[in-house]
Amino acid sequence: MTPTLSYQACIDACNACATACNTCLAGCLREEDMQMMARCIALDIDCAAICQLTASAMARNSEMARHLARVCGEVCLACANECVQHHHDHCQRCADACRQCAAACEAVNR
Amino acid sequence: MTPTLSYQACIDACNACATACNTCLAGCLREEDMQMMARCIALDIDCAAICQLTASAMARNSEMARHLARVCGEVCLACANECVQHHHDHCQRCADACRQCAAACEAVNR
Amino acid sequence: MTPTLSYQACIDACNACATACNTCLAGCLREEDMQMMARCIALDIDCAAICQLTASAMARNSEMARHLARVCGEVCLACANECVQHHHDHCQRCADACRQCAAACEAVNR
Amino acid sequence: MTPTLSYQACIDACNACATACNTCLAGCLREEDMQMMARCIALDIDCAAICQLTASAMARNSEMARHLARVCGEVCLACANECVQHHHDHCQRCADACRQCAAACEAVNR
Repeated sequence: MTPTLSYQACIDACNACATACNTCLAGCLREEDMQMMARCIALDIDCAAICQLTASAMARNSEMARHLARVCGEVCLACANECVQHHHDHCQRCADACRQCAAACEAVNR
Repeated sequence: MTPTLSYQACIDACNACATACNTCLAGCLREEDMQMMARCIALDIDCAAICQLTASAMARNSEMARHLARVCGEVCLACANECVQHHHDHCQRCADACRQCAAACEAVNR
Repeated sequence: MTPTLSYQACIDACNACATACNTCLAGCLREEDMQMMARCIALDIDCAAICQLTASAMARNSEMARHLARVCGEVCLACANECVQHHHDHCQRCADACRQCAAACEAVNR
Repeated sequence: MTPTLSYQACIDACNACATACNTCLAGCLREEDMQMMARCIALDIDCAAICQLTASAMARNSEMARHLARVCGEVCLACANECVQHHHDHCQRCADACRQCAAACEAVNR
């Protein structure tokens, strides 16, 4: 049993998003304007955590997977909306990864 | 900054529920009727994971905490409804912990 | 099957430490000297994560539990040593929780 | 700031291994000889969890990353050694992913 095709795409998007969030988080902690990045850091942590949990649930074909993907998509959008406001490269890349993951989570629920 | 009072009660309930789910999971893996416990094991894994994530989000006073608590409560109820059908002690205790955690998650959202 | 007595004390210490780390993290993100708190934030994240993973492994009576507890104790000590240098209440409380968790992890391995 | 090259390879291996472990776990829960798979299930859970934690720590360039990768590699080897004994496809694929992840974790520590 391998995860279904649509799940596999979403698992990949979740893993990519978790990595982007964690990378962004570490980048924010080194910025000179770190004070401005507090909400970005907080959302990066939330988003990385729910992305990893959702990826795991989908890989297990959990009956809760779609449900978790819905929340995951919402956290991704919140994180994307914060990240996109900052000019740092890691923030822009994180915003992209979050938007792609949100789209993948939505696709799983269609 | 300490977690707000209502959060603290829910954090405790989440931690207790995660421990009960993990204990139940390990118990199921030793039962002679393990074959009957497959759904219980699967839901124990989901429930322990979302309980730990929600506890963390509340301890961080995350803006996503209430949102995550809502899903957490739903997974807890699903897990409780499965566990309560099995006579094993660890299943009955897990069902109790899940119901208490679901109630705490609901209280946070009122 | 309930977690063995020595595990239960360590599970409680891990959960308390994860909450203290997450609370400290959120506190650091609100401090005026947030720039000074970057390493504290980074270690809080590491420590909360390994504490939750170790608590879960012990509740499952995992054959890896002692092994994970050893690493957990080391991360706790690193986090305690950073936190204790900052005068914020959440840092001092986190340092205490980290030291207690490190001791509980060591006790499990004796 | 992107994860360093050697970290990126290990992050990918950790994510692939976590997915393989979760897929194997779900597969085991559907096997007719599920009773035989109890240790495999237990190690799949441990391995998926430490792989995700290690991937996150590396993506954050955590000072604890190498340390966590060492334990991760040991859990991967334990899981590979169990999985390889079972003829199920998901077990064989999981054993492969675990061995590759163990090698990637070792490479990070050289």
